[in-house]
Formats: sequence, structure tokens, C-alpha cells
Amino acid sequence: MKLDTSKKILIVGLGLLGGSYARALTKKGYYVTAITRSQSSIDYALSEKIITKGAACVDPALVGEADLIVFALYPHVFIDWIRENQSLFKSGAIITDVTGVKGAIVDTIQNMLRPDVEFISAHPMAGREVYGVQNSNDAIFKGANYVVTPSEKNTPDAIELCRDLGEVLGFANVSQLAPAEHDQIIAFVSQLTHCIAMTLMTCQQTEHLEDYTGDSFRDLTRIARMNDEMWSELFFLNKDALLHQMTLFEGELNRLRCLLETNNIEGLRNMMRHSTSRRALFDKKL
Amino acid sequence: MKLDTSKKILIVGLGLLGGSYARALTKKGYYVTAITRSQSSIDYALSEKIITKGAACVDPALVGEADLIVFALYPHVFIDWIRENQSLFKSGAIITDVTGVKGAIVDTIQNMLRPDVEFISAHPMAGREVYGVQNSNDAIFKGANYVVTPSEKNTPDAIELCRDLGEVLGFANVSQLAPAEHDQIIAFVSQLTHCIAMTLMTCQQTEHLEDYTGDSFRDLTRIARMNDEMWSELFFLNKDALLHQMTLFEGELNRLRCLLETNNIEGLRNMMRHSTSRRALFDKKL
Repeated sequence: MKLDTSKKILIVGLGLLGGSYARALTKKGYYVTAITRSQSSIDYALSEKIITKGAACVDPALVGEADLIVFALYPHVFIDWIRENQSLFKSGAIITDVTGVKGAIVDTIQNMLRPDVEFISAHPMAGREVYGVQNSNDAIFKGANYVVTPSEKNTPDAIELCRDLGEVLGFANVSQLAPAEHDQIIAFVSQLTHCIAMTLMTCQQTEHLEDYTGDSFRDLTRIARMNDEMWSELFFLNKDALLHQMTLFEGELNRLRCLLETNNIEGLRNMMRHSTSRRALFDKKL
Repeated sequence: MKLDTSKKILIVGLGLLGGSYARALTKKGYYVTAITRSQSSIDYALSEKIITKGAACVDPALVGEADLIVFALYPHVFIDWIRENQSLFKSGAIITDVTGVKGAIVDTIQNMLRPDVEFISAHPMAGREVYGVQNSNDAIFKGANYVVTPSEKNTPDAIELCRDLGEVLGFANVSQLAPAEHDQIIAFVSQLTHCIAMTLMTCQQTEHLEDYTGDSFRDLTRIARMNDEMWSELFFLNKDALLHQMTLFEGELNRLRCLLETNNIEGLRNMMRHSTSRRALFDKKL
């Protein structure tokens, strides 16, 4: 299947990310529909003309006509949805997702899915600390990374289609990782960073800290405003990888502590220089 | 002394911060001069009209005419400068600084200073990951915090003058802390955050991590590009406070680890909600 504009794309879960997909794809001339729980999200999306049709229930017509279906749901909601509604898929449909963990999702979905429908998983690494289709904005994809996470069961065609989707959405960089590898990296770059941010916010009882803070602290805690329902689910679904990454981080922080305690100025400056040279690679390529 | 525009202000050390002071003060109509090591910095500042006069050596005329002198130097350079050149100050002059640690500075300077000159210390909590007067910009003060750190030796007049300076520079919030209290807070909001950022950058050897990263990791490591000379000096000057804050952080991170290990979903979600509510206070008031 090629991702040309004859393809009908259904988005299930029209929040910040689903809504941003709808915006980007409609702009590019695709026929985009949506299913989501809230009628007001559908009404908003229709009034903004970012979808052509939508329903606040599982409308068999919308599911049955879709060539590509993007699931932007909480992991357990996604799994339940497939279990209950997969009979509605058109034969040959491709389904993909935006889930932030893969090990616990890819196998589960692929093992329960009808053989004439293929699930190719992907992780769009974009987001904001706001929620809902009303805040959706396809500019969040600009300069961002999109990772396709195929398993051995995926076909080259579906992988290609999913990569095309990342390109069409406007991501700066489309890459590929095995689910387990993805989960280790995500445990580090996303989940551990959220653990650190929330730890920084809760390890002090000091009042009025905001009057004495600079941009460093603001930067490190921007993500400390968390949707606890979503993040707790992601943490527990990727618990082993997260604990492993936490151990690596704690070990290195302890090395830094020892450099300080032993007055090892040269060692400390070396670590700072190493940090500086590695960080230079990470600036967003806009 | 009132900080009216009849006052002559000398900036010693014309880097990013000193240059930004010069820009802000010149815009507000003050007579601003500068002393810094590099002639090209003086030339640049003169050509940009952000100072009226400048010298790349300790010019006795510039020092002797100044009513207020702002030191924007590394801590040990600042201390040496005072030791060697304080005979040049005009009687009644007020001196202030931008140093990021206070315990090791305030007493040392006040104890060695001529009795007819007063040192009132302050910490402008603004900065960027770039250096030099060429990158200076007084917009960095907008929305930022400015903390005056008087000791028992300071007079109400000098404290008032120093607070006025923060207002004139355009800081959003001017507050006051005792030096020791300042150093604990700064160990937390600034030094610990730099420790975390550098630890995140150095705890992994993974190549090409930048292809799989999102904004969370970019945010938490923006400050990982460090001037190792400056930061190692600040860390060691505030070593005890930094180690204390590191211990608090590690203890709380360990509490989070236990919540994960024991599958305490409710405990984890509580911690996330606590984090979210505390973080809401910290957005910059622009």
C-alpha cells in the first residue's frame, strides 16, 4: 500500500496528538475521519475542518472504510479497543499507533489481530504539556523525531507505509528501532527525565522557591506537570527498562558526587567537558 | 545613595552578563563605563554605544569616578581584583557583583574592604549558554529573578540601592536572602540541576541518541553545555550545600524507585499530582 491521498485515514482518539495528526494530514489533502469519546472534540474538529467525518462512538462505517487507522489512545484502552472492535476493520487495513512504550504493546496487539490486518507500531516523539484536540498543532512535529518499531511479523510494505506517514506528518527525522531497543531508549530519554523532573519538584518543601529560581530549574521541571493516569501506565508498562536506566543514572550521579567529595577538580572538569561535547549533537535541527 | 541617572556606573568584566547590564543601564540613561581584559570587548561595547568609556586595564580614572561598581568576574578573580585595586575606589562608592555563590564571597570581600566603601552582593538569576559581550542582551532579565544577599554589615541604604539596580535592569522580581540561605537554594535550583544535566549526558555511551530523543531530554540537558572553568569553581565554593541537596534529591528519587518496584500505582500517581501542583507556580511571569 502506498500512502497516496486516495487512502482513507481514521484517527481513533482525538486528543492533542490525534488532533495534530488530523491537522497535518488534512492539510496534505488526505481524507481524514475520527472516532473519539467526546462529542465536543468531534464538533470542534469538524468546525476546524481538520476532519471530514467523525463519531463519538465506534461507528462501523468509519472503521470499515479506513485504509489506515491511527490509534492515539492510552495503552490499555488501545488493547481493549482492538479486542472488542477488530471485526469491523476492512480486510487489508493497516493500523498504527502513537504509544510511548512498545514491548508491552506490539506483541499483544499483533498476537490478537486478525491475520488480514497488519499492525505496524510507531512513536511520534512530540508532545506538549497541554491536552485535547483544542490544543492540537501540527507544528509540534517540526524538528522532531519519529520512530517506527517493527517486529519480525511486519512486512516491508507496512514498514514503508508507516515511514511515509512520519514524512507526511512533517517529522524532521524518521528512524527505526526494534521494540525492546526503543523501550530502553525511551526509558532513558523520556521516562527517566520525567522521574527526575517530578523528583526535583517533590524533594523540597521550601515555599516560594519560584522567587529564587532561574531558567535551569524551569527547564528541568517543565515536564513535571504530568498526566498521572497516562504516565503511571507508561512507567509500569516499561518498569524493568526504567529501573535499569535509573540505576545507570544513579551510578553516574554518584561518580560526580565522589569527584566533589574528593576535591577532584580535574575529574569534574573532564566530566563537564564530556557533557558539553555530547550535548552539542542534540540541538533540534529546525 | 539613590540610583538616579547622575550616578556613574562602572562594570568590571564585560561578558554576557556584564554586557547585558551595560545595555540595560545605558538604555535607561545612565553613564556606564567598563573595564575588562579584552580590548576587542571594549571596542565592541563602544561601537554598540552600550558604554561611554572603557579600558582593557585597570584605569584609575574610571575606577575613581565610579559611584557604583558592578563586578561580573569569576569569584577568585573578583577577590584578587579587590585585594589589588581597592585603593582606587572613590570614598563612599558602593560595589556589587553577580556571583553565583555568596557564602564564600560576601564575608571575604567585606572583611578585606576599605571601611569607606560598601559591598552589597546580589545574584541576577539570568544567563544563557553563550558567552561574551557580543552575545549580551538585556532581554535575559525579563521575567527573571534578582536576589540581593545582604550580610549584617550592610546598611539599609546600600540594600535599597542594590534592589533599585535590580528594578532598573528590568528583573521581574527582586527579593532578598541571607547569603547562607541563598547558597542552599542555589545549590538546589542551579547547581544540582547542572549536575543532573551533565549526568544525563555522560551516563550513556549510546551513539545517535539524538535521533530518538524528544523535547523532554532536550530540555533537561540544555544546560549540559557548561563552561567547566566557571562551574567547577562555583561547585567547589558551595560544595557542602550542593552535597546536601544532592542527598535530598537522591533520597526522593529512591522513594520513586521503591514506588515502582513495589507496584504502588496510587503512591506514584500521588507523587505525580504533587509534582504537577507544585510546578504550576514556576512559570515565568512575562
